[in-house]
Amino acid sequence: MSKEKKLVEAITSRDEDFSQWYTDIVKKADLIDYSSVRGCTILRPHGYAIWELIQKNLDKRFKDTGHENVYMPMFIPESLLQKEKDHVEGFAPEVAWVTHGGEEKLTERLCVRPTSETLFCEHYANIIHSYRDLPKLYNQWCSVVRWEKTTRPFLRTLEFLWQEGHTAHATEEEAMEETIRMLNVYAEFCENVLAIPVIKGQKTEKEKFAGAKATYTIESLMHDGKALQTGTSHNFGDGFAKAFDIRYTDKNNQLQYVHQTSWGVSTRLIGALIMVHSDDNGLVLPPEVAPVQVMVIPVQQHREGVLERAEEIRSRLSKHIRVGLDDSDRMPGWKFSEHEMRGVPLRLELGPKDIEKNQCVIVRRDTREKQFISLDDVEQSIIKILEAMQKDMLRNAMELRVSKTYTAQSIEEIDEICNKNPGFIKAMWCGEQSCENKIKEETGATARCIPFEQENISDRCVCCGEPAKHMVIWGRAY
Amino acid sequence: MSKEKKLVEAITSRDEDFSQWYTDIVKKADLIDYSSVRGCTILRPHGYAIWELIQKNLDKRFKDTGHENVYMPMFIPESLLQKEKDHVEGFAPEVAWVTHGGEEKLTERLCVRPTSETLFCEHYANIIHSYRDLPKLYNQWCSVVRWEKTTRPFLRTLEFLWQEGHTAHATEEEAMEETIRMLNVYAEFCENVLAIPVIKGQKTEKEKFAGAKATYTIESLMHDGKALQTGTSHNFGDGFAKAFDIRYTDKNNQLQYVHQTSWGVSTRLIGALIMVHSDDNGLVLPPEVAPVQVMVIPVQQHREGVLERAEEIRSRLSKHIRVGLDDSDRMPGWKFSEHEMRGVPLRLELGPKDIEKNQCVIVRRDTREKQFISLDDVEQSIIKILEAMQKDMLRNAMELRVSKTYTAQSIEEIDEICNKNPGFIKAMWCGEQSCENKIKEETGATARCIPFEQENISDRCVCCGEPAKHMVIWGRAY
Repeated sequence: MSKEKKLVEAITSRDEDFSQWYTDIVKKADLIDYSSVRGCTILRPHGYAIWELIQKNLDKRFKDTGHENVYMPMFIPESLLQKEKDHVEGFAPEVAWVTHGGEEKLTERLCVRPTSETLFCEHYANIIHSYRDLPKLYNQWCSVVRWEKTTRPFLRTLEFLWQEGHTAHATEEEAMEETIRMLNVYAEFCENVLAIPVIKGQKTEKEKFAGAKATYTIESLMHDGKALQTGTSHNFGDGFAKAFDIRYTDKNNQLQYVHQTSWGVSTRLIGALIMVHSDDNGLVLPPEVAPVQVMVIPVQQHREGVLERAEEIRSRLSKHIRVGLDDSDRMPGWKFSEHEMRGVPLRLELGPKDIEKNQCVIVRRDTREKQFISLDDVEQSIIKILEAMQKDMLRNAMELRVSKTYTAQSIEEIDEICNKNPGFIKAMWCGEQSCENKIKEETGATARCIPFEQENISDRCVCCGEPAKHMVIWGRAY
Repeated sequence: MSKEKKLVEAITSRDEDFSQWYTDIVKKADLIDYSSVRGCTILRPHGYAIWELIQKNLDKRFKDTGHENVYMPMFIPESLLQKEKDHVEGFAPEVAWVTHGGEEKLTERLCVRPTSETLFCEHYANIIHSYRDLPKLYNQWCSVVRWEKTTRPFLRTLEFLWQEGHTAHATEEEAMEETIRMLNVYAEFCENVLAIPVIKGQKTEKEKFAGAKATYTIESLMHDGKALQTGTSHNFGDGFAKAFDIRYTDKNNQLQYVHQTSWGVSTRLIGALIMVHSDDNGLVLPPEVAPVQVMVIPVQQHREGVLERAEEIRSRLSKHIRVGLDDSDRMPGWKFSEHEMRGVPLRLELGPKDIEKNQCVIVRRDTREKQFISLDDVEQSIIKILEAMQKDMLRNAMELRVSKTYTAQSIEEIDEICNKNPGFIKAMWCGEQSCENKIKEETGATARCIPFEQENISDRCVCCGEPAKHMVIWGRAY
């Protein structure tokens, strides 16, 4: 059906069917389209523009912390992937294999990168020789492929866009500092740009990255009470360095192994934006990552002077923010719905009566609150409203998380929470993988992280009753 | 050998062995490293930073002309690739095939995109319905794979980074306008940003893109007199639209096929930068795409106040341009050579005597000309010098091209020019592919393009003596 003929269709209610609501949003907010390749989606202009804003914000933070961008090949020879034992075990089952180039069968299969540790390690072994070559602080923006069985737009797709930072350091301490520094960069970015509060913590042995010494994570809570691993930062110690023989000569002329890290976030962040902020009218975007922050919509635009005035205001605003003007010949109500669906933070309505009164109407996407503002200082007023909206969205997301955070003293309690009011569940753990496994089997909840901010909920493991080592955040997760 | 121990090694002379000189530069200017995958290179920070500047400049031009970025999957099912007959014939022999996902053999092979016409067409068939949906002006930045037998960094690699624009229009005229608009964007970008003059023209039937109605090209001339196809823009007519059934309802409610274009440039542009501008001391970069435009190098930096003053100047300059400060403990001469090798446009030397005289020394990378400038208005002076350098580099490249542009009246003459003083060779052509083939077989020169600016060199085809239809630029090419 052609777009201008179709009315803005209602989407499934979020509370009725969260999963269908999510699927409706990704399609009807024009974020993605499906392709004929199973599990691969097309990022449409609106979806890609959000990713560009995420990239721009993160890339600046990476460069401000001394990182440089590079580009590695997308193919990894099978023998290279196999160099680090745990790593290949973790990834080999889910990679795509290239076996033929043109007409010719390859002598060695190549996998399409699921992640690029092995390529960075090979390169580092080539270019790192002396302590003066350290640290190496590299990042790359690219797409990776993981052969997932079930997929869902943004959350789990065969191919996805991401960034992967890979660094090499002279000492264990520096590697650890870097691991935490980048976790903090991610957390700050999520809160201040995406308006998504996160919990920082360490992954358990069971949940850590294949080949890592320790994995750190930021975990966020979606509107349906399920957790999302939003970004990870890994400390590799010298494990990869030993497998790939990455050594440097230190100041005392001794050969030493480097210590490495890697860290990444992906288009999954767009999934988080949807599941944290959006509602039954469609996408809700925090102003910082909204491709259009204000859409000017003329009312009675056929009346003399209305379009001219609307364009004048658009032009004034464009010097400060990302602004659009919808002067198409559709009805204003239709336009309101469409730009709501697409998550435009503010709508600015302007009709003949407004012009007479030297004012315009502003409607916030998150609260749908309506206010009249003077055209004299419309720029300053709008900048203030956008700033307030950005803060309010973070506060609301935080309140949501607080309201859905529970404590549990038994497996039964965890199970009950998961089934009735899912959310983050704080419970004590002895540190044994057998208990972790049992909790997962019986409740479906996994250890999201051992948060840096520990609380003493009880002295005993929620599963076995033995002395507790950590408070863990449990939850069912995407 | 560790970097600080090695002296800056001399590179092969450009006039002695152009090919080895090129290879030396890509490695010693830290642009690339080789990987263990045949024909795939690693873009190192310096090489990737140049690409980022190219991207930033082009992306702005694309957006200013109304284009939006998207991201398509990297895989194309074999059946989709086969939908347009000429297209599959052109590309199938040189694609990489994915046959396995994880442990499982795929029921249909997927190729890694060599270009994405088929994916865009499939998407356009889904989203274009009415004349109001047109035009669609999409672009994507990504990497593509072509299974080349022989490879060379930047010029021909198995995988390379590029952008591909794909547009759909209501009419033939609009598609033609778009094709030429984007060719002009490329030409303007090459001349004003890369300082590389180009010749705009049409490709012959033999040389056009697989599936195109007509291919337009910008051709540039390298220092060794060989031609480089620097960017192309294709008019597809309605060929792909018919193969993929991309139709829209026009204002009279009639179903019509869309008319399409595609256009692309790649990291090959970095190869052009090297082969047009660089010299026996290494890379020479036009200021517009130099990651660092000015490197401040303190002289006698252990002397009191020198480093502080150097840092103060760096800080002042950083408000206007991309500037670095090399305060490492290596000798100034070593630093001079290294930053020359990496193509930094200006070097700013500052020692105790300069400080006394309130001046600094500026050395231009292209001319190696030395001048003293006052520290009072160092920002303005440097901006002027950078602007002059940018213009001079274009003028010099233009002069080089003029000096290496010839006319020929016979195949023998073409052959002689190719062997003795290679360059662009203007010669008349009857339009028959048999003559084009014969010229290629006997001289190694291909038809680079039928330039938009025609000249009447003679009335007869340089090959068969029949009446001439076009003046063609011939040349041996990369």
